[in-house]
Amino acid sequence: MAKNAVYAQSGGVTAVINASACGVIETARRHGDKIGTVYAGRNGIIGALTEELIDTSAESDAAIAALRHTPSGAFGSCRFKLKDLETSKREYDRLIEVFKAHDIGYFFYNGGGDSADTCFKVSQLSEKTGYPVQAIHVPKTIDNDLPITDTCPGFGSVAKYVAISTREASYDVRSMSKTSTKVMVIEVMGRHAGWIAAAGALAADAENDIPVLILFPEIKFDQEKFLAEVKAKVDKYDYCTVIVSEGAKNPDGKFLAEQGTTDAFGHAQLGGAAPVVADMVRKALGYKFHWAVADYLQRSARHIASGTDVAQAYAVGQAAVELALKGENSVMPTIVRASDHPYKWEIGHAPLSKVANVEKFMPREFISADGFGITEACRTYLSPLIQGEDYPPYHNGLPRYVTLKNQLVAKRLPEFKL
Amino acid sequence: MAKNAVYAQSGGVTAVINASACGVIETARRHGDKIGTVYAGRNGIIGALTEELIDTSAESDAAIAALRHTPSGAFGSCRFKLKDLETSKREYDRLIEVFKAHDIGYFFYNGGGDSADTCFKVSQLSEKTGYPVQAIHVPKTIDNDLPITDTCPGFGSVAKYVAISTREASYDVRSMSKTSTKVMVIEVMGRHAGWIAAAGALAADAENDIPVLILFPEIKFDQEKFLAEVKAKVDKYDYCTVIVSEGAKNPDGKFLAEQGTTDAFGHAQLGGAAPVVADMVRKALGYKFHWAVADYLQRSARHIASGTDVAQAYAVGQAAVELALKGENSVMPTIVRASDHPYKWEIGHAPLSKVANVEKFMPREFISADGFGITEACRTYLSPLIQGEDYPPYHNGLPRYVTLKNQLVAKRLPEFKL
Repeated sequence: MAKNAVYAQSGGVTAVINASACGVIETARRHGDKIGTVYAGRNGIIGALTEELIDTSAESDAAIAALRHTPSGAFGSCRFKLKDLETSKREYDRLIEVFKAHDIGYFFYNGGGDSADTCFKVSQLSEKTGYPVQAIHVPKTIDNDLPITDTCPGFGSVAKYVAISTREASYDVRSMSKTSTKVMVIEVMGRHAGWIAAAGALAADAENDIPVLILFPEIKFDQEKFLAEVKAKVDKYDYCTVIVSEGAKNPDGKFLAEQGTTDAFGHAQLGGAAPVVADMVRKALGYKFHWAVADYLQRSARHIASGTDVAQAYAVGQAAVELALKGENSVMPTIVRASDHPYKWEIGHAPLSKVANVEKFMPREFISADGFGITEACRTYLSPLIQGEDYPPYHNGLPRYVTLKNQLVAKRLPEFKL
Repeated sequence: MAKNAVYAQSGGVTAVINASACGVIETARRHGDKIGTVYAGRNGIIGALTEELIDTSAESDAAIAALRHTPSGAFGSCRFKLKDLETSKREYDRLIEVFKAHDIGYFFYNGGGDSADTCFKVSQLSEKTGYPVQAIHVPKTIDNDLPITDTCPGFGSVAKYVAISTREASYDVRSMSKTSTKVMVIEVMGRHAGWIAAAGALAADAENDIPVLILFPEIKFDQEKFLAEVKAKVDKYDYCTVIVSEGAKNPDGKFLAEQGTTDAFGHAQLGGAAPVVADMVRKALGYKFHWAVADYLQRSARHIASGTDVAQAYAVGQAAVELALKGENSVMPTIVRASDHPYKWEIGHAPLSKVANVEKFMPREFISADGFGITEACRTYLSPLIQGEDYPPYHNGLPRYVTLKNQLVAKRLPEFKL
């Protein structure tokens, strides 16, 4: 008998997480003999816990296909972390209850490191309780910090956005530096890992001699050295562009800018490193400056998504279902790089026990000796990930993104208080 | 005999000012019998004054064609305002000297309100001194605040960027509002006029029920009313998106955020209204928030330029040359709207005496009664300006923009100190 599936989106959304949803649902629809209905958790795992399950079978094939070019989380996502099996026993028990009530045999969890951990625990629980659920994690994070997989869907598109924006803003500043801005500071995301910031360096290449300085979270900020580098670049080019990661830290370990608030995971909510750095430059060197904070614009910029990223996001969704159909449990599809030149990739998979709670930082050999740039090895790694333009359809000058009906199925269980 | 031409870019650059340069140069090349060499001022009018003239005839046809898809100012621009004919007599005299020395018969000045004034004065000077120079202004400003012309090249592309970014970020926030951000604040440019901010409202349409609140420079900021509106939107939608113009002002006339520095024109250099508004929302309503400051990213975003804008930017460049060839002086090509549905436009022209020093603000009837949105009349006006995607070519995942050789011609005059 065909079992139903629960699919849930977790954590910060991306330009391509819906492409993974599209891969999951379209693949499941092709295997109706083995997978019944795909239910999506409304607002992620919260919907799975509160039995707010979206019936994706109510959505047309065209609407599901449009997920491939729609940014954000079409079913809603959330920041809600389940802890270990003892501490969060009530939540894990409830999940199994909901799965039983709706005849769920497959759990596809689409997220980053925290959700890989949750997915892993669900897969363990399945064994322990004897209720058979295959838990497959679908990788997603703009931070690119999941282990084993060569890259994480969502990252390539942010990287492309940051690389393009850095090139465009640098052209702008270059043309005005005589009388106006000399230092442009762009703040990008990446709480702990500098992958996104690194992409700013791609703005420069053999045809584009653009001075870019990067402030990585992995490198302790040395103000004196940084200001000397800015001065050297401005002396040579009359301008420079600084990419600062939101995760860049002072030597005392504090973020360059903290707003003092925390998100639901208890992480400090960041923002505002760019004005801090810009002001530092102004005070020490007196240069005119401008600064930008791309914030959500960078991770939702589906209009300029990477073709490679979209294809990989879809592929991991498809692979998750195919792995489930092969009987796998407690695994995550991965992207395996087969070659750099030409870039070739294929789908592999890894056990969740090796994925959960492991963060992949920028290797030191990807960061230039002075700490402000990237190496050729890093460029070789990053460059293929931003290749290809996968433009959405347009209507009235704007991308035509889909908003689903998101019909909930009838509840079968008593209410559950979060 | 064919006279030479000077072309100069002025003020803040845009995604499409080079498309106007392309229109000027390509059209001049087709009329070699009447126009000799087009010289471009290096860094705008400064280059014309210091006799740093770029010989555009050294650039290939392909390089000039590539200007059409290259953002920024390819020859350099500047913020350098000439004052009235008496105060800046030394500069105006010098301009004529340079024109004489290089046999210049045409002056094409590509800029906004300040440069229209300079261009107007140059045209007067030509009459007074008896040295015949035809001065034609080529309109350019993202602020869309030039009079007479239906729109200003540069604006449509920023408007498209802001509309798309607002839609994308709103989708993002909508999918996370359950546990995360409820209020997204995006700061956009527009020092005195709210045209750019207004474009944020285009994110919402019949297919996209997105709650957008706009803070216009034209409307005095009423904190209490604003916070009540934010609360009402969040109560209804669980999130909302606020677009704040950098020019939004407190009732006391001060900008919501001033950095305390001024640019070369003496205007206050702005930035940072978004964090101010976000913090206000947090303190009063306690909502989680994120904020973005698009800054130069918005005006250099050639990757998502408006097809209408690119075509119009090219057309005003072309028309400037054609007007010159018809013997016109002291005029500016304008964009004339022939119809809204379907959108049709043609090129007209206006005397510079009526353009210089006139700023076009948002008409009150384009702003909704509550002051936080746009009216249907405004939507009818804005919508055609963002139509069409004019994608640049890509290489290695990044737009392939052109960097010109920018060879200077030999100087014939003594040095001139600015």
